[in-house]
Amino acid sequence: MSKSKKTLKFSHLNQKGQANMVDISDKTPTTREAVASGKVYMQPETMTALKSESLPKGDVLATARIAGIQAAKKTSDLIPLCHPLMLSKVKVEFELASDHVLITATCKLVGSTGVEMEALTAVSVAALTLFDMCKSADKSMSLSEIHVVSKVGGKSDVKHH
Amino acid sequence: MSKSKKTLKFSHLNQKGQANMVDISDKTPTTREAVASGKVYMQPETMTALKSESLPKGDVLATARIAGIQAAKKTSDLIPLCHPLMLSKVKVEFELASDHVLITATCKLVGSTGVEMEALTAVSVAALTLFDMCKSADKSMSLSEIHVVSKVGGKSDVKHH
Amino acid sequence: MSKSKKTLKFSHLNQKGQANMVDISDKTPTTREAVASGKVYMQPETMTALKSESLPKGDVLATARIAGIQAAKKTSDLIPLCHPLMLSKVKVEFELASDHVLITATCKLVGSTGVEMEALTAVSVAALTLFDMCKSADKSMSLSEIHVVSKVGGKSDVKHH
Amino acid sequence: MSKSKKTLKFSHLNQKGQANMVDISDKTPTTREAVASGKVYMQPETMTALKSESLPKGDVLATARIAGIQAAKKTSDLIPLCHPLMLSKVKVEFELASDHVLITATCKLVGSTGVEMEALTAVSVAALTLFDMCKSADKSMSLSEIHVVSKVGGKSDVKHH
Amino acid sequence: MSKSKKTLKFSHLNQKGQANMVDISDKTPTTREAVASGKVYMQPETMTALKSESLPKGDVLATARIAGIQAAKKTSDLIPLCHPLMLSKVKVEFELASDHVLITATCKLVGSTGVEMEALTAVSVAALTLFDMCKSADKSMSLSEIHVVSKVGGKSDVKHH
Amino acid sequence: MSKSKKTLKFSHLNQKGQANMVDISDKTPTTREAVASGKVYMQPETMTALKSESLPKGDVLATARIAGIQAAKKTSDLIPLCHPLMLSKVKVEFELASDHVLITATCKLVGSTGVEMEALTAVSVAALTLFDMCKSADKSMSLSEIHVVSKVGGKSDVKHH
Repeated sequence: MSKSKKTLKFSHLNQKGQANMVDISDKTPTTREAVASGKVYMQPETMTALKSESLPKGDVLATARIAGIQAAKKTSDLIPLCHPLMLSKVKVEFELASDHVLITATCKLVGSTGVEMEALTAVSVAALTLFDMCKSADKSMSLSEIHVVSKVGGKSDVKHH
Repeated sequence: MSKSKKTLKFSHLNQKGQANMVDISDKTPTTREAVASGKVYMQPETMTALKSESLPKGDVLATARIAGIQAAKKTSDLIPLCHPLMLSKVKVEFELASDHVLITATCKLVGSTGVEMEALTAVSVAALTLFDMCKSADKSMSLSEIHVVSKVGGKSDVKHH
Repeated sequence: MSKSKKTLKFSHLNQKGQANMVDISDKTPTTREAVASGKVYMQPETMTALKSESLPKGDVLATARIAGIQAAKKTSDLIPLCHPLMLSKVKVEFELASDHVLITATCKLVGSTGVEMEALTAVSVAALTLFDMCKSADKSMSLSEIHVVSKVGGKSDVKHH
Repeated sequence: MSKSKKTLKFSHLNQKGQANMVDISDKTPTTREAVASGKVYMQPETMTALKSESLPKGDVLATARIAGIQAAKKTSDLIPLCHPLMLSKVKVEFELASDHVLITATCKLVGSTGVEMEALTAVSVAALTLFDMCKSADKSMSLSEIHVVSKVGGKSDVKHH
Repeated sequence: MSKSKKTLKFSHLNQKGQANMVDISDKTPTTREAVASGKVYMQPETMTALKSESLPKGDVLATARIAGIQAAKKTSDLIPLCHPLMLSKVKVEFELASDHVLITATCKLVGSTGVEMEALTAVSVAALTLFDMCKSADKSMSLSEIHVVSKVGGKSDVKHH
Repeated sequence: MSKSKKTLKFSHLNQKGQANMVDISDKTPTTREAVASGKVYMQPETMTALKSESLPKGDVLATARIAGIQAAKKTSDLIPLCHPLMLSKVKVEFELASDHVLITATCKLVGSTGVEMEALTAVSVAALTLFDMCKSADKSMSLSEIHVVSKVGGKSDVKHH
């Protein structure tokens, strides 16, 4: 067995390789925050329409924002080994670029485990909702680069770009 | 107003720009199928571990498959303007490449509206679950290229690559 | 026993007075529509703020609309004896009067049972969401006059005011 | 802009008027309680039937009570900007008057935010369930006067009538 | 490989042994019904209390009945490979014996797949609710003999005892 | 009234016999653990197939494990008087005997109430999922002996066999 494989730690599998929910009973609750982001690529004309003052962009983004916030709260129902958590804050923001919408989600918690899955879930479902809201106008959208941007408040802070 | 904007059809917004669920009461039920796919990029060592016979890869993919199937059934609860649907089939498959897992989901329905959002949701949540299962071993994963591959059975068939 | 009691028909109770889901197996599916409405009473200043061009009223109503649409789809999960239904359309509309917001919800279905509970649930949850969105500004709101406005497509059409 | 508008505080909207979940990370958990009530107006004969010893009223109220308790626990799934909460107690009570049922719900929590939305949701869904249970007998019911009765345990106690 | 193993048909696994949702797209909808039953064993004194006129047994059974009906509607959310279904009828009944409560659930559907999992789920959750309602009085209860009693309306009718 | 009835304590009913959620506001959070188990009886040939190296048993048990873990998190949505809880750990294990699968579930919590209902729910839904996964091969399965094995961390520890 190669060295790299030996050192990889899969905390979500037990010794027998079975799905394993991590036991967080003994962890001290701290304030934790995670930020995730992702992009929905669209045709330039769809982006122009979305950005235009003359187009009712409001409800497209408002609907995606609500869907993202709601999804963050459903994370433990969607991802089998996630713990149920009492999120203290969920924020979903949009930035309109020339060929994509950048979605950024921030989740906060006073608790015993990180909230990056919640932030990623908020981004993903907000992105799916944007896709749904625009799909009658644009058949070639895609969701991309959904990743963790930063994570603070646990054992080790992480900062990606 | 530019010509492109005028011709774009946003069926999920009404004339006032408000979120609008499409009325499918008068559509005749037909058999419909949609396929979507997406990738979870991982470090080569994570992929090697996932592929290795000696590593219990079974439950990682089995868990992500179940999560994807379950999520397809929850689509109308996640995406605000999606109709509740009685999916007749959901399939989630994985292909392990050198630096990513390719996830493909197929949804079928005898009904009055397409199921591409259901297939995209299955892919996204299977991808999030893979991310969750492997995140203790790999801090730099990302979800990418989540898109509709094909859609048949409605007014117009669509085939992406 | 009085005559009025004898003639009242409680189809949601069996002969022993136990909760009873109506059997709709033998009913022929038809296109059905129900409209319900209700009011959220607010202070005149809250209404003025909500109506003002200078105030970001958009997201208040957009959020309540999405919540109402989502709630209609959850009706059978909220009301114990309601059947799971595949709504073909949900519409939630707002009218801003001087001391209240009038909420109207329309639900449609091709199916075997009426959708007035779905329309009432959409109105109620949209109203609760409006309440939640405005409660930091107005401590004396109330929800009132939530009722069925009309119901067509079943055995007998009904029209209330 | 009028003075009244300036002083109104909409904590559920950010500066740009976008839906905003309040950040409760820094709030100290305290024991909180909220009471809400509302009425379901019915025809006098329906009320008589409901009150009569000879009529199986038990399951009507028992069903509505369970639905109200269950709904309080679903509040953060129904109202987009509500936080997930661990309610420590939900109580739903009924009083039968001559032309209406008065529903009162009490919610308790040791936590960082008030529970009036939970109490209002319990009342509303218990009322919708009563409506559903009695609608075969009475076509003219309505839900009214759903409001917060009292709220204790947060920054400021509130008592309405 | 033994003969018996060869002839066993696991339709919920594909050729690779992966979880497999059966494709019901081509099945013709028919009226189907399934009955399941199960027992909650209790101490004789708990049973006596439950049966006594002087004890408020009403809400114990009413609560378990509602929980069972609601659970039947949630089956596809609980059992990963079950299809979402539009149940046309759910019935949950109790019989009080000397040392157990017999729970019987009947589910009906006009659709393309059987509803025995829905009936079994209704029985199981009604039984869990009975357990919960009585556990302060009886520490030694158990759920037993939960099985399919009969199934009609599909390819082959089944009758167990 | 007999002595046994007087001494039985039904904390889930109030004085009027109405469903009553226990108030846990004043209970001090402690670390609690509950273990429950149950059996799915199958034909010996089904058990042989399940145990055989040549049969893809992996996904059957993996699917049932995920379903059990997910169900534990849904307990308060399934059992009307259960409190919403933040489980810190859920474990579901299987032992293959000659004529049954023994399912054992362990739930942990730092909180104010016991988690035996969560462990029982995990066992029951894992058992229902096993049933569903094997029902095409075996028509005579049953779920039995679902009970609490042990409970520690509350007022009084309990140990059953």
